[in-house]
Amino acid sequence: MLHELPIAIDSAACFEPRVGAGLDRASFTAMAPTAAAARDWIRARRDDGSLPLLGLAGRRDDIVAWKPIVDRYRSLYEDVVVLGTGGSSLGGATLCALVDGGGVTGPRVHFLDNIDPIGFDARLAGLDLGRTGFLAISKSGGTAETLTQTLIVLDRLIERLGRENLGTHVTCIAEATDNPLRRIASEHGLFCLEHDPKVGGRYSALSVTGLLPAAIAGVDVEAVRRGAAAVLDATLSADNPLDDAAIAGAVINVALARQKGVSQTVLLPYVDRLDRLSFWFRQLWAESLGKDGHGTTPINALGAVDQHSQLQLYLAGPRDKLFTVVCSDPRGRGGRVRADLAGSAAGDLDYLTGRTMGDLMSAEQRATIDTLIRNGCPTRIIRFPTLSEEVMGALMMQFIVETIAAAHLLGIDAFDQPAVEEGKVLARQFLREAT
Amino acid sequence: MLHELPIAIDSAACFEPRVGAGLDRASFTAMAPTAAAARDWIRARRDDGSLPLLGLAGRRDDIVAWKPIVDRYRSLYEDVVVLGTGGSSLGGATLCALVDGGGVTGPRVHFLDNIDPIGFDARLAGLDLGRTGFLAISKSGGTAETLTQTLIVLDRLIERLGRENLGTHVTCIAEATDNPLRRIASEHGLFCLEHDPKVGGRYSALSVTGLLPAAIAGVDVEAVRRGAAAVLDATLSADNPLDDAAIAGAVINVALARQKGVSQTVLLPYVDRLDRLSFWFRQLWAESLGKDGHGTTPINALGAVDQHSQLQLYLAGPRDKLFTVVCSDPRGRGGRVRADLAGSAAGDLDYLTGRTMGDLMSAEQRATIDTLIRNGCPTRIIRFPTLSEEVMGALMMQFIVETIAAAHLLGIDAFDQPAVEEGKVLARQFLREAT
Repeated sequence: MLHELPIAIDSAACFEPRVGAGLDRASFTAMAPTAAAARDWIRARRDDGSLPLLGLAGRRDDIVAWKPIVDRYRSLYEDVVVLGTGGSSLGGATLCALVDGGGVTGPRVHFLDNIDPIGFDARLAGLDLGRTGFLAISKSGGTAETLTQTLIVLDRLIERLGRENLGTHVTCIAEATDNPLRRIASEHGLFCLEHDPKVGGRYSALSVTGLLPAAIAGVDVEAVRRGAAAVLDATLSADNPLDDAAIAGAVINVALARQKGVSQTVLLPYVDRLDRLSFWFRQLWAESLGKDGHGTTPINALGAVDQHSQLQLYLAGPRDKLFTVVCSDPRGRGGRVRADLAGSAAGDLDYLTGRTMGDLMSAEQRATIDTLIRNGCPTRIIRFPTLSEEVMGALMMQFIVETIAAAHLLGIDAFDQPAVEEGKVLARQFLREAT
Repeated sequence: MLHELPIAIDSAACFEPRVGAGLDRASFTAMAPTAAAARDWIRARRDDGSLPLLGLAGRRDDIVAWKPIVDRYRSLYEDVVVLGTGGSSLGGATLCALVDGGGVTGPRVHFLDNIDPIGFDARLAGLDLGRTGFLAISKSGGTAETLTQTLIVLDRLIERLGRENLGTHVTCIAEATDNPLRRIASEHGLFCLEHDPKVGGRYSALSVTGLLPAAIAGVDVEAVRRGAAAVLDATLSADNPLDDAAIAGAVINVALARQKGVSQTVLLPYVDRLDRLSFWFRQLWAESLGKDGHGTTPINALGAVDQHSQLQLYLAGPRDKLFTVVCSDPRGRGGRVRADLAGSAAGDLDYLTGRTMGDLMSAEQRATIDTLIRNGCPTRIIRFPTLSEEVMGALMMQFIVETIAAAHLLGIDAFDQPAVEEGKVLARQFLREAT
């Protein structure tokens, strides 16, 4: 790695003898040739442009092209609703969480990704439709959930604002093929942005799908891409692929599953604004690798909260999990615990008084990492000083590369999801049969 | 079962030959004596009062006693913040989600369960403290996170509203021992409700911890308890314990883990307002059973969203999961898909036009269940017509009994969490050492 990356990754506690259930170094090192093949496969596809998701991080032209829509939505609307599910929702939601730290002005961006009629109506009812913009996103243009949401929203907008205002309030994103969402857009004069047909939903966070909602929310999306590009460049330029954290992460995951029966991979960020990242990662990992009997289960967790929920199981349950703890450095941040307000409790709370909330968070994440390692749990630590757009982009690219490389190591296609087709066909059949 | 229960449970698809990875009936039936022992153990503790959580469902006196606090918070405040984590947060949050369907008036109840200083400050900054009430909840009265939150909130309230107003704005819940939260309450003249020392945090949803926030939000908490009581009564009165869904659920979970290597139990509700239930269940199951190398991993999921995220893994990944799909009957609910608005897309969408959003949800949950079963995944189905307070109470008691019975079958203590102590001690040490 030539330059300092936005994130630093320490995988030492994934190996024995440091952790009992860890990987042995020799078999890890022996995987260097297959790791190099995975890395070379990725590099070749970046270089020849056949996997355009790998080129997204270095682009800027598309962001410039969306700018008028971003400016319009930011100036017109108090609320913006993204209609879409799975890959059309999780990346944008993850990025939009960056503004939850406060200090950013712009519309509130909501992600309505479900078709629970009670939940959907309640959330729409909370909005002033006259001050609300919509983005309807479906890569194929044929996602039943998103089409249903979109047609119901169009109905309500017509009722409230008239047909002539639909084009102002609703923008669509879909492939440039002849598909239902495009036809609906054309019917009602809605502008439709193009979803690159070669960028799958779960890999589209760095495309218009994820970045347009984020830019509307006030996220610096160019910085997100810079962070992602830094990680990808590091992966592709490492002399030894096992020295690169993303490729090494894939090898560690696959080898722990094969050699140690590790069946679950836990993502445990100690940052509120990374809670959504775990859900984005869940889809990326599960849909890409859950094939032919392969695929460890991705588990979302959040520190320090899950110390009071999941840690007992993590420490004393089966040794079937790999942990990735994601840590910022919150020391000195937040309110301070005043001894005078604690009064007669101050004696019992000597460890807390004078400390900030961030000091406690820092101590807890360190204690969890130490305890996991002492208890023999394979543990990987991702660190950065403070969460930023660059860090978020770097985290996303880390997991994207790791996932693609893991699929290559397993000999499976990272980009399809054949098993879910059966359910889609059945659902349509049941709807047709219903009377 | 003498009366109709608020929920109906179908476990048929947990067994072979219907599902390939299912349990064989003979070994299930052979577990009747141990199942009876677990049921009898629970009954004895309900009857002699030694496990007071089992008596909560039948009580009403305590609800009457809190009523003045509920009325005061509902009349004075626009927002109510619960400070607490784990068992002091998840039950209340689960119950408060009942009002997310709309139509209920009352304060917005927020659960601040983390110590991320940026997240905490941003959420507090969004509130008008003069119109905000607080509930600080810690069973032991010594939870570092909750004490830190509470002392920081007291500091801000003093700054904004003066010391003399603290007692109006803040109420505490803790055991009636000499503990830090009680001392802080006493120092500042805050009213402190009693947390039953024999009702552990993760089992306290039906106590003041869960019901007080819920009542403030506008939930009919007596109805919650009625639903819970119905399930407990059914469990304790079944002639054959294996005919009772809660005891049978424990047996199925334990037997699938032993015989079929099932290491994960997925809770998949198709109701937005049950999303939080999965997180409450996660703590209940993980902390109660994650001991001595035992404990399957509880997985939160949400339908239909996770069809676009996790279903590929569920169907085509390892056969190491038990699924519990939770279904209401949403047919006919929500907006309707109008063919005229679909325009030229209506032909492709013939399966959708004329249907409601709830019709689609219904077809999708049915399709997921069928697909899981066709693919050999052990699947249990919980059904009810529509989510209500009774249903929520019934679901909670179902999982509480199931968890306690599973611990009994495994020969472990359902009520302790010894492994997390090490991390708490370490965190205090790190804070003391920090300079």
